[in-house]
Formats: sequence, C-alpha cells, structure tokens
Amino acid sequence: MFELLKTDPSSRARVGRLTTPHGTVDTPVFMSVGTQGSVKALDPRELTEMDAQIILGNTYHLNIRPGLDIINAAGGLHRFMNWPAPILTDSGGFQVFSLATIRKIQAHGVEFRSHLDGSLLFLGPKEAMAIQAALGSDIAMVFDDCPAHTSTPRELQAAVDRTIRWARECREQPRAPGQLIFGIVQGGVQEALRQECARALVDLKFDGYAIGGVSVGEPEPEMMRAVEITEPFLPASQPRYAMGLGTPAQMVELVARGVDMFDCVLPTRVARNGTAFTRKGSLSIKAGFNKSDFRPIEEGCDCFACRHFSRAYLRHLLNVGEILGLRMLSVHNTRMFIRVMAEARTSIAAGTFAEFRREFAANYVPTKKVLLARAAAAER
Amino acid sequence: MFELLKTDPSSRARVGRLTTPHGTVDTPVFMSVGTQGSVKALDPRELTEMDAQIILGNTYHLNIRPGLDIINAAGGLHRFMNWPAPILTDSGGFQVFSLATIRKIQAHGVEFRSHLDGSLLFLGPKEAMAIQAALGSDIAMVFDDCPAHTSTPRELQAAVDRTIRWARECREQPRAPGQLIFGIVQGGVQEALRQECARALVDLKFDGYAIGGVSVGEPEPEMMRAVEITEPFLPASQPRYAMGLGTPAQMVELVARGVDMFDCVLPTRVARNGTAFTRKGSLSIKAGFNKSDFRPIEEGCDCFACRHFSRAYLRHLLNVGEILGLRMLSVHNTRMFIRVMAEARTSIAAGTFAEFRREFAANYVPTKKVLLARAAAAER
Repeated sequence: MFELLKTDPSSRARVGRLTTPHGTVDTPVFMSVGTQGSVKALDPRELTEMDAQIILGNTYHLNIRPGLDIINAAGGLHRFMNWPAPILTDSGGFQVFSLATIRKIQAHGVEFRSHLDGSLLFLGPKEAMAIQAALGSDIAMVFDDCPAHTSTPRELQAAVDRTIRWARECREQPRAPGQLIFGIVQGGVQEALRQECARALVDLKFDGYAIGGVSVGEPEPEMMRAVEITEPFLPASQPRYAMGLGTPAQMVELVARGVDMFDCVLPTRVARNGTAFTRKGSLSIKAGFNKSDFRPIEEGCDCFACRHFSRAYLRHLLNVGEILGLRMLSVHNTRMFIRVMAEARTSIAAGTFAEFRREFAANYVPTKKVLLARAAAAER
Repeated sequence: MFELLKTDPSSRARVGRLTTPHGTVDTPVFMSVGTQGSVKALDPRELTEMDAQIILGNTYHLNIRPGLDIINAAGGLHRFMNWPAPILTDSGGFQVFSLATIRKIQAHGVEFRSHLDGSLLFLGPKEAMAIQAALGSDIAMVFDDCPAHTSTPRELQAAVDRTIRWARECREQPRAPGQLIFGIVQGGVQEALRQECARALVDLKFDGYAIGGVSVGEPEPEMMRAVEITEPFLPASQPRYAMGLGTPAQMVELVARGVDMFDCVLPTRVARNGTAFTRKGSLSIKAGFNKSDFRPIEEGCDCFACRHFSRAYLRHLLNVGEILGLRMLSVHNTRMFIRVMAEARTSIAAGTFAEFRREFAANYVPTKKVLLARAAAAER
C-alpha cells in the first residue's frame, strides 16, 4: 500500500509511493482542498494539467450539502464531481469542533448544530465512517476530537482519550472497497500525550497517520514542535500527513521532519485576495507596482496562468473584479504548491534535498499577510 | 472585406464571411462580450474550444481601467488579454449615455463623470477612435448618440443629427492598420429617422452598419420593428450588426430579418444567476428539481460543461457558491449561443433555414426571467 522508496541522509525526508483504489500518489505530496466537492475556482482538467495527484473532500460539508443521498445516487464522490484520481476525505471532526455549535459531546460522537441553518446533527465514528464509505473516498480519516491550541493539559488529555476511543470505533466500521483509513494523532505540544496517542493508534494498525491539532491558529514554532514530538512515534513504513498545512516554506521544513502529505486552503484562498505564491515568497498581484509589469507571475513557472497571462493583465482583472483573475491565481498557486513537492521528491531521490531545502529557505521570504491567512485557514 | 455567400429565399437571412486583420468571421455570428478585457468567467482556451470567432471589448470601460497607457505598453488589446482572434470594440457611446452622469453634450463629444469615481472625462468621435486605434481592435464602432427608448421624436431627431455628424468625424480619424469601422444607425422606431440616418451613414461608406438604440429596455416588438425599418436601407454587400441583442430565439428571428452580427451579455450574466439556455428555453439549474438529475444541462450539447458534469453537480456548486458552477454555466450558455448561429449558417447554406427557424421557435419557450434579464442587460 505504501512503498518507502528513498530516505534523505541529511534529514528525516522521504520519498514514497502510496497505492489507492483510484491510482498511486507520489509523496511528499500536496493535496488540493475540495471541501464542498470542488477545488475552489478550478476544474478537473486544470487540476490534471497541473499534476494534482490527489484532492480532498469533506465529510461534514458534503453531508450537509448536497447530502449523501445525492452523492450516493451519483455513484460516489469521484463520479459526482468527475474526478477520476484519488480522493482523501476528512472525517468532519475538525469542522464539528471549529465550525459548528456543539450541543453535547457524547460517548459515541457529538451532537451539534449545523453552521449553516442551525439544524441538529450528530456525527461520531460510526456516522463519519459510514459517510466516507458512501462518498467512496480512497482514504478515510478517523473521527477525532480536535481541541483548540489554547486547551489546558487536562483538556488535551481528554481529547486524546476520546480520539483513541473513537479511532478504535472507526477502525471497526465497514469501509468502501479498498478504502484506506488513517488515524489522527492529537495531544497539542505535550510530548507524553502525543506519544500516548501515537502508540495507541499504531497498535490499531492504520494505513497511515495524520498529525492533527495543527493549523488551528497556533504560532509556527508550536506547529513545528507538534510535528517533531509526534513523528518519532509513527512507523517509517507508513505515510504521515500533517493536516491543514502549510505555506510552501513550511511544507519543505515539514518534509525535512518526515511528513509525506499536506493539504491547505491557502493556494486558492489567497488567490481570491489577489496574492500569488512564488519561490521568493508571496506577491500581491493586485499591487500598483504590477500595473505595467508584463512578466508572468513567476519566471520559469509552467502553469497555465504563467504561460498565457502577464501580471499587468491579471492585476487588471483582479482590480475590476473579473473572475478570470482569481481563477488564474488559483491555478498558479496550486501548481506552485504541487511543483515544490515534486522538486522535493526529485531532490530527495537525487540525494540533494539538503541543498534544495537550504536554497528554498534562503529565497523564500514569508510575509505576515500569508501567515495571517494561515491562521484564518483554521476555519477550513 | 465582406463576402456574401448565400441568401435565404424564405427570408432576409444571409450567410457571409467577414475578413479582419486577425482572421475571418463566419456570419451570422454571436460575439461574446468581454467588456473589461475578459469574457466574464471564461478563459481564451475555453472560448476557442467553443468556436468563439470574435469577441467584444469596450472603449469606455477599458479607457477607465486599466487605462490606455497600459494596453498600449502591452502592445494592444489582443496581446494584453492573449486573444489572437478578431475583436470588435464598442465606441463608448452607449456607456456614456447610459452609465455615466453626463455633464454637457458638446459639439464634438460628451463631458461626463466616470460611473466609477466621478472623475470628469470627455469622449467624442476623435477620442473614441483614438482609443480604439490604440486598442488595435479589428472592428471599431463610431461614437454615437444613443438616446433612451422613451425619447420624444424631437430628441430622436437630435440624436440622429448628432450621430451622423459624429460618424463623419469618426470616419476621418486615423485607425489601426487594417482596422474596419462600422457606422451605427439611430432613430428609434421612427421609420423616417432610421432611413435618414442609414442613408447618411451609407453615403460615408462604412465597412459595416450597426442598428443601435436597441437593447435599451424597449419591449421586444419595438426592438423587432427598429430592425425591420432599418435593414432595407443597409447595403446587402456589407455586414449588419444588431447591438446588444438578444436571446437565442430573438437572434434567430433577427437573422431572418437580415442581421449578421450579434452581441449580448445574457449568456454569462444569467449563468451567474444559475440559469442555463437550452433549445427549449432557459432552465434554472439552481432549481430543486435538478437535485438528483444526473443528465447534462442539455442532451446532445458538445460543450465542456455538458461533456463533464451533471445538472445535479452543477446545482450543488451553484447552491454552495462554488465558482466552478457559474463558470460551467457560462461555458454552456456561450457555446449554446455560438452553436445556434452555426446552425443558422448551415441551414441557410443548405436552403433549410425556414425549417430551422420554424422548429427553433416551436421548441423555444421564452421565459419572463430572461426577458427581464435582457432589460437589465441594457446596463452593458
């Protein structure tokens, strides 16, 4: 299911290949977020052209709209959205604990009110797995308790206990044919809790392990630490997934810390605000200095936007509110994230990852604006 | 420049071919509207795939944003927006008389306040032609006086006088290499005025003639009458263009009345409201009855949306506000308008236009909603 092809001598970085019912995924990989059954502003052809290997769907959102009956009638999520390649579905745990108004946490799940219309809903291990089985995703995530990063040690312990219990329940539920299941490690920045959670999940033998409780508004050092204290307890033979992360620079650093899979709303979210990601950091295409700049967003970029349009044109489109502007920035940003991971794979395989990592960090200037957007992305 | 290839024995319909600096255009033709340098929500590849032969740009809007200096620096509008095929530019007359706050109509143009920021601007024959020369469009339109459809005969006479005078001034201005220039006939539904205006313009020998003062909120019979009383005075050897029109059914009827060229914002505008055009009339994709309808928008349609997505999926996208929904409806609607014109050409060439027209009218049920949108489209 997961083949570890190469490990980097200078770091914990690895190259692997994950086999799923809808095809293989080369890791490290960036997964585009298609929360509601569409990667925002992009169509499947554009995703295929930019070499998107796998995308995300979301249990919480898809269960509310369009509802399972419709996706069932369509023959599953792949056919509903016409995406033939792998899909990972998040369990809805994150959304229940961040978007919804929780009414009551019960033994086997959470009673909550829909963020949309306030209707009373219930989601737990059984429900989340049944929905993901019906969606027919290639990788299902367990239903976890994702606490705020400001939680007390006591609250974190309760979340870990619940996460382990629910993970066991998830493990016992029926799944779609060939569907993989990943556990989610919680525990904040408490090393003992992360270890406890990881060990318990590994005992349950999942197909992969996610590091949860990150990208929930915590500062970057805390996020890095959460990954660093968790990774040693995850089996090398299986894929590791850092949920909801990150910026390109963060992804490269997390690859160096042994993470194989990433997902983040940043590429399409900041695109809608007129911001592009480049190797030098983020760039406001909307800014006045691009008025007469007829270069592409990024020299050397092979994306559709950079091959066809200038910064000046895209700035104009964003400026007058034309949809093509945010579309093309979404194309560029998503391709940029995918390409950085492709280059990480190539350099790990070639034994030059240390150099790639150093150069990437030297060139990339993180901007405050993007870091703020990352905090906002916690509402994913 | 314009080759009349075939005329229909049953009506005034014709098939022709218009040669422009950026390629030929088969008529009757629907021209997609790219007011601000982008056909809303679509990219040039999508337009090419749906066989869009020619698109529109707008003097008034492009002159305000991004401004001429930027389009000049880009090397003209084609290069700025990366559209290699023909472009027709409207002169800005319509917008000055409908969008802007007019300060003073002067002998050689109009002093007005920008609809955007209230800044004081001036547009007249000289300015409109200079801007269109700089944009480098294939077809420039004269700067006309486009009065409201509720104008008195006296006001219409004044508009015709001014339109003729300004057309003469436009005719004398320098143009881009190979750029064609079309006159615009005004006169409301006053036969004598339409005749007077048409005759005067024909004396000035334009490359084509537009029927203006339609799609300004008038009822359909008035619009049809304006075309009917103008067409007989336009030379058969040159293309005729009905500005801002219409619905598919109206276009077919106007083809039968001798019109060769159309432009309308309807396909992309109603797409953004979740409405699709089909041979049976318009269809609300957003409507509940499409919830579990896994057919394409229209059976037999060859557009990208119909080849890839179901009504149920598109309804979901529109329902949750995903951009892909309005994108795909824009694709379908624009392709539908283009295809209806292609079928009109084929049937005229084959001598079966009478049958095509009859069948089209029998199948197509115009909806009130679209007719209301057409009235709103007067703000183009």
